[in-house]
Amino acid sequence: MVRTIKKRSVKSGLPPGTLVHIGELRDRDIRISVMNYHAGGCEEKEIKAIEECMSHSDTAIVSWIDVEGLHEIEAIRQLGDCQKLHPLVLEDILNTYQRLKAEDYGDYLYIVLKMLRINTDGEIVTEQVSLVLGSNVVISFQEGVEGDVFNPIRERLRNGKGKIRELGVDYLVYALMDAIVDNYFVVMEQVGERIEALEDEVMADPCPETVRKIHQLKREVILLRKAIWPLREVIGALERRDSQLISETVVIYLRDIYDHTIQVIDTIETSRDMLSGMLDVYLSSISNRMNEIMKFLTIIGTIFIPLTYIAGVYGMNFQFMPELHWQWGYFACLGLMLSVAVSLLFYFKRKKWL
Amino acid sequence: MVRTIKKRSVKSGLPPGTLVHIGELRDRDIRISVMNYHAGGCEEKEIKAIEECMSHSDTAIVSWIDVEGLHEIEAIRQLGDCQKLHPLVLEDILNTYQRLKAEDYGDYLYIVLKMLRINTDGEIVTEQVSLVLGSNVVISFQEGVEGDVFNPIRERLRNGKGKIRELGVDYLVYALMDAIVDNYFVVMEQVGERIEALEDEVMADPCPETVRKIHQLKREVILLRKAIWPLREVIGALERRDSQLISETVVIYLRDIYDHTIQVIDTIETSRDMLSGMLDVYLSSISNRMNEIMKFLTIIGTIFIPLTYIAGVYGMNFQFMPELHWQWGYFACLGLMLSVAVSLLFYFKRKKWL
Amino acid sequence: MVRTIKKRSVKSGLPPGTLVHIGELRDRDIRISVMNYHAGGCEEKEIKAIEECMSHSDTAIVSWIDVEGLHEIEAIRQLGDCQKLHPLVLEDILNTYQRLKAEDYGDYLYIVLKMLRINTDGEIVTEQVSLVLGSNVVISFQEGVEGDVFNPIRERLRNGKGKIRELGVDYLVYALMDAIVDNYFVVMEQVGERIEALEDEVMADPCPETVRKIHQLKREVILLRKAIWPLREVIGALERRDSQLISETVVIYLRDIYDHTIQVIDTIETSRDMLSGMLDVYLSSISNRMNEIMKFLTIIGTIFIPLTYIAGVYGMNFQFMPELHWQWGYFACLGLMLSVAVSLLFYFKRKKWL
Amino acid sequence: MVRTIKKRSVKSGLPPGTLVHIGELRDRDIRISVMNYHAGGCEEKEIKAIEECMSHSDTAIVSWIDVEGLHEIEAIRQLGDCQKLHPLVLEDILNTYQRLKAEDYGDYLYIVLKMLRINTDGEIVTEQVSLVLGSNVVISFQEGVEGDVFNPIRERLRNGKGKIRELGVDYLVYALMDAIVDNYFVVMEQVGERIEALEDEVMADPCPETVRKIHQLKREVILLRKAIWPLREVIGALERRDSQLISETVVIYLRDIYDHTIQVIDTIETSRDMLSGMLDVYLSSISNRMNEIMKFLTIIGTIFIPLTYIAGVYGMNFQFMPELHWQWGYFACLGLMLSVAVSLLFYFKRKKWL
Amino acid sequence: MVRTIKKRSVKSGLPPGTLVHIGELRDRDIRISVMNYHAGGCEEKEIKAIEECMSHSDTAIVSWIDVEGLHEIEAIRQLGDCQKLHPLVLEDILNTYQRLKAEDYGDYLYIVLKMLRINTDGEIVTEQVSLVLGSNVVISFQEGVEGDVFNPIRERLRNGKGKIRELGVDYLVYALMDAIVDNYFVVMEQVGERIEALEDEVMADPCPETVRKIHQLKREVILLRKAIWPLREVIGALERRDSQLISETVVIYLRDIYDHTIQVIDTIETSRDMLSGMLDVYLSSISNRMNEIMKFLTIIGTIFIPLTYIAGVYGMNFQFMPELHWQWGYFACLGLMLSVAVSLLFYFKRKKWL
Repeated sequence: MVRTIKKRSVKSGLPPGTLVHIGELRDRDIRISVMNYHAGGCEEKEIKAIEECMSHSDTAIVSWIDVEGLHEIEAIRQLGDCQKLHPLVLEDILNTYQRLKAEDYGDYLYIVLKMLRINTDGEIVTEQVSLVLGSNVVISFQEGVEGDVFNPIRERLRNGKGKIRELGVDYLVYALMDAIVDNYFVVMEQVGERIEALEDEVMADPCPETVRKIHQLKREVILLRKAIWPLREVIGALERRDSQLISETVVIYLRDIYDHTIQVIDTIETSRDMLSGMLDVYLSSISNRMNEIMKFLTIIGTIFIPLTYIAGVYGMNFQFMPELHWQWGYFACLGLMLSVAVSLLFYFKRKKWL
Repeated sequence: MVRTIKKRSVKSGLPPGTLVHIGELRDRDIRISVMNYHAGGCEEKEIKAIEECMSHSDTAIVSWIDVEGLHEIEAIRQLGDCQKLHPLVLEDILNTYQRLKAEDYGDYLYIVLKMLRINTDGEIVTEQVSLVLGSNVVISFQEGVEGDVFNPIRERLRNGKGKIRELGVDYLVYALMDAIVDNYFVVMEQVGERIEALEDEVMADPCPETVRKIHQLKREVILLRKAIWPLREVIGALERRDSQLISETVVIYLRDIYDHTIQVIDTIETSRDMLSGMLDVYLSSISNRMNEIMKFLTIIGTIFIPLTYIAGVYGMNFQFMPELHWQWGYFACLGLMLSVAVSLLFYFKRKKWL
Repeated sequence: MVRTIKKRSVKSGLPPGTLVHIGELRDRDIRISVMNYHAGGCEEKEIKAIEECMSHSDTAIVSWIDVEGLHEIEAIRQLGDCQKLHPLVLEDILNTYQRLKAEDYGDYLYIVLKMLRINTDGEIVTEQVSLVLGSNVVISFQEGVEGDVFNPIRERLRNGKGKIRELGVDYLVYALMDAIVDNYFVVMEQVGERIEALEDEVMADPCPETVRKIHQLKREVILLRKAIWPLREVIGALERRDSQLISETVVIYLRDIYDHTIQVIDTIETSRDMLSGMLDVYLSSISNRMNEIMKFLTIIGTIFIPLTYIAGVYGMNFQFMPELHWQWGYFACLGLMLSVAVSLLFYFKRKKWL
Repeated sequence: MVRTIKKRSVKSGLPPGTLVHIGELRDRDIRISVMNYHAGGCEEKEIKAIEECMSHSDTAIVSWIDVEGLHEIEAIRQLGDCQKLHPLVLEDILNTYQRLKAEDYGDYLYIVLKMLRINTDGEIVTEQVSLVLGSNVVISFQEGVEGDVFNPIRERLRNGKGKIRELGVDYLVYALMDAIVDNYFVVMEQVGERIEALEDEVMADPCPETVRKIHQLKREVILLRKAIWPLREVIGALERRDSQLISETVVIYLRDIYDHTIQVIDTIETSRDMLSGMLDVYLSSISNRMNEIMKFLTIIGTIFIPLTYIAGVYGMNFQFMPELHWQWGYFACLGLMLSVAVSLLFYFKRKKWL
Repeated sequence: MVRTIKKRSVKSGLPPGTLVHIGELRDRDIRISVMNYHAGGCEEKEIKAIEECMSHSDTAIVSWIDVEGLHEIEAIRQLGDCQKLHPLVLEDILNTYQRLKAEDYGDYLYIVLKMLRINTDGEIVTEQVSLVLGSNVVISFQEGVEGDVFNPIRERLRNGKGKIRELGVDYLVYALMDAIVDNYFVVMEQVGERIEALEDEVMADPCPETVRKIHQLKREVILLRKAIWPLREVIGALERRDSQLISETVVIYLRDIYDHTIQVIDTIETSRDMLSGMLDVYLSSISNRMNEIMKFLTIIGTIFIPLTYIAGVYGMNFQFMPELHWQWGYFACLGLMLSVAVSLLFYFKRKKWL
C-alpha cells in the first residue's frame, strides 16, 4: 500500500492532465499491435508509427489496438491525440494505481480493470488494463508484456470461431472483460489451495508460523476484495448506461460477467470468513494445549507438595519424635505417602482433570 | 469452496456460450420426461428423441419437460435449440455452481434455484435446479435423479387435485419453486436438531471436539446462508417484473414463497447466532474450569508451602536450637503447623476462594 | 426455533392453500364472538353457527368478529368462505409461526401481529394475532383464549367512550394494533427488571450461573427483536398504502403506533447492548479476581521459597559448616529469614502488587 | 431505561389521546409566559388563565407561548383546545419519553426535541421540549423550570438585536432549536473532560474502578447517541418539507443546525471510539502487569527450585556420602549454588525475560 | 476532540451569524492577495484596504482573492459585505472546526475543505480552507500562512501553463481543490512509512510501547478518516448540482478528484485494517512468549519437584532406614534422581512441550 502512495505522491502539485508514468518500469520496448476485422476476415499487424493506427473511416471494420507497456509516454500521448482522448484519460491510463471504473466521455467509454496473476513468489499481483471503446475501435492498454489472457480472443478473431467477428466493437470489449474476469477463477483456485493447506496445518500442527501465514493470506485476500469490489458497480453502470456504444445484445452478455463477478466476490468473502474461522480454531487449539500443560503442572505439583511436606516433617531434628524410633516407622511413612498420592489421583480422576 | 472454483476455472479462456458440464458426473443416463396437461386431463411420457418435446401449437395445453442429469451436453443443446434458448442460458444450466437468479429474456424467464439435501454423512449438499418458463412450456433441469421433491406436484397433476391444472404455466413454475423452498424447512429441522444436540454437549461435557463440531456446523450454516440469501431478490424480482409470463393471480402466490424464504433466512441467522453464542458459552465454561483448577492449586500450594518451611527450619542442624530439646517440641511444632493450615483455610473461605 | 421448524416442515409437499393448524393445540372449544356497533350503540353476541356472522349489508354498522382458538379448521374454513378470503390467507392464519406482515388483497387487508406474554416460568411467549380488515368488518384470529389485551377495547365499544364507535372500521383495527403494541411496554418492563436484577448480581457476586442467565436473557431479547423488527415495515406499509380501507384520519393514529414501535425496538436494542456490556463487566471482574488470587500465590510463593532454601542449606550434613557451631547461629539464621521476608514484602509493596 | 418503560407501561390499555403526564413531577406551579412581538416592538406577560393566550387575529404579531411544567394536565388540555391541537399531540407533549420527531399536521408543525443538562451528580440528564409552530404562534412546552437555554433568545426579542423580530414565526422556532443544539456542545465539552481524566487514569494507574467508570461513561454516551441520532432526520425532514410554515430564508438556517447536529453526532461517535480504545489499552496494560508478575514468579521460582534441591541432596542421611567429609565441601556446595543461580540469571537475561 | 468542542461551546447562546473566530490565533498579520487574470495575462497584488478587492464588472477577468489568517474579524466582515456573503457563511469561515461541505447559495457556492500537514512532532494536523465561488471571483480563506500547497497554481497562473487561464472561475476552484487532495497523498505516504516501521517493530521486538504507538496511530487514522470521509459527498454534490457556476467541462475534472478522494479513503481504510491486524499479531506474539515462559516454568518445576521429594525422603531421621546404610546407597539415589529427570524430559519431548 505504501508503495502505491509513494508513487502517487510524486504527482502532487502538477497540473491535471500532466502525463507521468506511475508504475513499475519494464525494460522491454512498448509493443503496439493492431487487429482489423469484419465478419468476413481479420488482418493483423504490429506497428511502429502511431499514425498507422488511425481509425478507419470504414465503419464496418473494427480495429483493436493493443498497447503493451506504458513507460513510453510520448507514444501514448500521440495515440491519445489521434483518437482524441481527454487528457485526464491519458493521465489515468499511465497511473497504474487506478481504482476500477467506467466513465462515459460521450464519443467513447473509458474502462479500467485489473488483471490478476500469481507471481513466482506465490503472491497475487495485479496488472492494470485500460480499455477505450470508440465507435469502431477498441484500444487496450496493458502494463506488462505477458498478456496471454487475451490470446484466446486473438485466436477466435483469427479463425472466426464464435460470434466475435460478427457482433461488433462492444462485443469485443465484452470479450476482453470476460477473459479478465474468467482468469480471476484461476487465481482464486490457487488461493483456495493455499487455504486448504493452511487448514490442514492448523488441524495437525499449529505453530506461531501458521498464524503469520494466515494473517498474510488474509491480508492478501482483503486487498484482493478491495481491488475487485468496484467491478460490480462498473459492470452495473455499463449495463444501465444508455450509451449508444453498447448494444442491447451485448447487455445480456454483460449480465453474465456481472454474475461471475458476484461469484468471485462471494468466493473472496468466503475465503476471508474461512481464514478468520481458522484463526479462532488456532487460538482455541493453542489454549487447549496450554490447559493440558497447566493441568499436568497442577497434578505433578499438588501430588508432590504434600509428600515433600511429610518428608520434611520426619527430617526434623526434635529429640523426642516417637515415630522415628518405631521399627516400621520408615515403611509406615512411605505407605502414608503412597496413600496420599493415590487418593489425590483419585480425586483428580473424579473431577475429570486427568 | 475450492472445489467450486476448481471446476469453474476449467472454462477460463473459452468463448461465452461454450457448453461445458461443470458438476459431479452421474453414471446413470439422462432422463427426460414430459407431462402435457390442461384443465381436463394430463398425459405423461418419457422421451428419447428431443424432437418429441417440441412445444405444442395448442396454447391451452401446458408442457412440463423435466430433465434429470446434465452430463449429456448434446441432448441439452438440442433441447435448447428447439426451445430457442440463448447460448448463455444453456451455459448456465450446465454450470452447476451458479448463483440463484431470475433473468428475463423476453420470450421466456430463466430461473436458477438450489435444492437442499442431507447426504448420508449428515452434510448438507445442494443440487442446482434451472427452470425455464416459456409461454406454454416449463422446462426444469436437475442434476440428480432423486428428484422426489417434485413428486407431490406430479401427483397433483395426475389426479387434478387443487388448482394446478387450471392455473397455467406460471402457476406450475410457482408450484415447483414452492416445493423446493418447502423442502428447506425439512433440512433446517435437521440442522436444528444438530444444534440442540451440540447445545446439550456444551452444557454437559464440553471438550475440544465440541468446538470443532460447532465450527463445522457454523461453516455449513454460513455457506447455506450465502446460497439461499439471493432467493429474496430472485422472488422479489419475479413479483415486480412486468413480464407477460407471470399473471396477477400467481404474484400473490409468489408473495407467499417470499414469506417462506424470509422465514428460512431468519432461521438460518438465528442458527448462526445460537452457534456463536454456544462458542461463547464453551469458552467461558472452559475458563471457569481453568479457574477451578487454578484455585485448587493455589490452596494446596499456599497451605503446604509455609508448613514445609516450618519443617525445614526444625530440620536445620544448628548446635544450639533450644526448641529441639523441649520435651513436647515435636508436638508443639505439629500443633503450630495445624494452626497455620487452619487459619489459611479460614482466610480462603472468607475470601470466597474455596 | 427448532420447534418452529419442526412444525413447519409438516407441510412440506402439500399444495398451497391446504389448511393445517400449526401451533400448540388447546383443549378448550373455539369461541367466536361478534360485536356489531355504530355511533349510537353496540350489540354483542357469542355465536355457534358460522352463518350468523355474515357481513351486514348495512354499511353503517361495523362488525368485529373475534375468533379465539385455531384448531377447528372446519370453522375457520367456513368463515373464510363466507368472507371470501384467499386460501393463502386462511393457510397463514392457521400457521402460527408467521412473520409479521400486512398484505393488501384489494377487498381486504390481512395483517399478522404477535402478542407478547410472560408465562408462569418467566419466559416471554408470543401469540399470533391475525387481523382481516374488510369494508365494514374486522375479523381477529387469536391462538389463545386469554385475550384480555382486547378487553379495554370491548369496554370502550360497550360504553362508547372515546371516538371508537364513530370512527369506523379502520379505527377499530388501529385500536386493536395499539392494544397489542401498548402491551409490549408491559413485557419490556419485566425484561428491564430482570436486567436490573442481573446487573446487581454481576456487581455483587458474579458466578458462572450468572453468565448462563445473561446468555439466556440475551437470547430471548434477540428472538424478541427478530419478532418485532418487521413491525416497522408493516405499519410503514399501512401508512403509505393507498388502500381505500384506511382513511386519512387513521393514518395519523398509525403514525403514533409507529413511534411506539420504534421506541420498543430502541428499548430492545438498549437491553441487548446492556446485556453485552454486562458480559464484559463479568469477564473483567472474573479476571480481576483471578489476578487477585494470582498475586496472592506469587507473594506467598516467592516469600517462602527463599526461606525454605535457607532452611535447606542449614539442614545439610557437611562436616565442616562453621555457622552451625556458632552460639547464636540459629537465631541469626531466623533473623536472616525475617529480613528476607520483610524486604520482599517491601519490594512487593513498592511495585504495588500488594 | 427500565424507568422509561415502567412509566410508559402505565398507559397500556388506555384509549389513544388520553392525557396522562409521564415524567418526573415538579412541585412548583406550572408557569405560562407569553411574548408578543413584531418588527417594531415586543410585549411580555405572564398569564394565569388560558383564555388570555388566544392567538391574535393580527397576523403581523408573533406570539411565543412558553409553558414550563407539564403536570397540570387540565391547563395543557385547555391550551391544546384553544389552539386546536390534535389529541395525539397533547398526549405526546405530556409523555416525556418521546423520541425526537417532527410531524406535519397541516395547520401546524409539531417538533419534539431534547435539552441536555449535567445534573449535580455529574450525570447527563435529558429534558423534553415540544415545539408547536402555527401560522403566527409558537408554543414551547418544557418539563423543568430552569429553561435558561432560552434566555438569550428572550433577551434578543426584548432588545431587538439581530433579525429575530423581523423574520417571523419560523425563524423563532429555528432560534429555539439552535439554542438547544448549541447547548449540546457545552454538555459534550464536559463529557470530553471526563474522557480526558479517564485517559490519564488509564495511563497512570489503571484499577478495576477505572473499568467501571469507562463502562459507565460509555453507556451514557451510547444513550446520548441514541437520543440525538434522530435529530438528523428531524431537521432533514423540516428542510425538505414543503410546508407553507417554513420559509425559504429559514431553510438556510436549518441547514446550519443540521451541520451542528452532524458535528455533535461525530463528536459522540469519536467519544465512543475513544472509550472503546481505552478499554483495550486498559486490558493490555493489565495483561502487561500480569506478565510482569508472572515473569517475576518464574525467575524467583526457577532460580530457587534447583538450589533447594541441591540443599536437599546434601541434607540426606546416607552413611557413605564422600562430599560431606571434604574439608571445603560446604563452601564448594555454596559455590555450586551460586554458579547455578548466576547461569540461570544469564539465561533469562539472554531470553529477554528479565 | 475535546479542544474542538471547548472552542465551539464558546458560541453557545449567541445569535446565528455572530462572527467569532474559533481557532488557534496566529500572531502574524492577516494577508490578502489578489490575482486578476484572463486568457492573455495575469496581474498580481497584495492589498490592504478591502475596497480594493471589489469584484470587477468586466466578466472576462477572473479574480482570485486569497485570505491567509482569520483572526481579524473586521476585515473578513468587510470582505463578506462587499461580496454579499450570507452571515452564516462568514460565521462558518471563521469557525475552523467545520465539517467538509458544499453549499449552494444561488449566486455563489461555499465549499469547506481541510488541508493536511505533518507538524514538527510528526502528528497530522488539519487546516481549514473555505472557498467561495462567485460568477467571476474565487475567494479562498486559509487559517495559516504557509499555504505553499497553492503555490504551484499561482505559478501556473503567472506563466499561463496548462489551460488554467482559459477555463474560467470554476476551473480555478477545481485546481485549488485538486491541489489540496493531491497533497493528501503526500501525508498518507508518511503515514504509510510509520505503519511500515511499526510493522517491523511488532515482528522484531514487540513491547508495550509498541501497542501504545499502534493505538495512537490508529486513532489518528480514524480521525483522519472522519475528516476526509464527507469529501465524497461534497464532490459528488458539486458534480450533480445544476448550478450555473460549474460548467460541463469542469464536471469531468471533478470526477477525477472524486476518484482520488476514493483512493485516499481506500488507503486510509487499508491503513486502519493493517493497524488492527498488527494488534492481533502483537497480542498473539505476546501470548506466544507467555506460553514459552510458562512451558519453561512447567519443565523446571515438574522436573525438580520429584527430585526434591526424593532428597527429602532420604533426609528423614527414622532409625531403621535400610537404604541409608547401603554402601552405594547415595549413588543409587543420585542415579534414581537422574533417571527420573531424564524420563520426564523424554515425556515432555514426546508431548512436544519442549
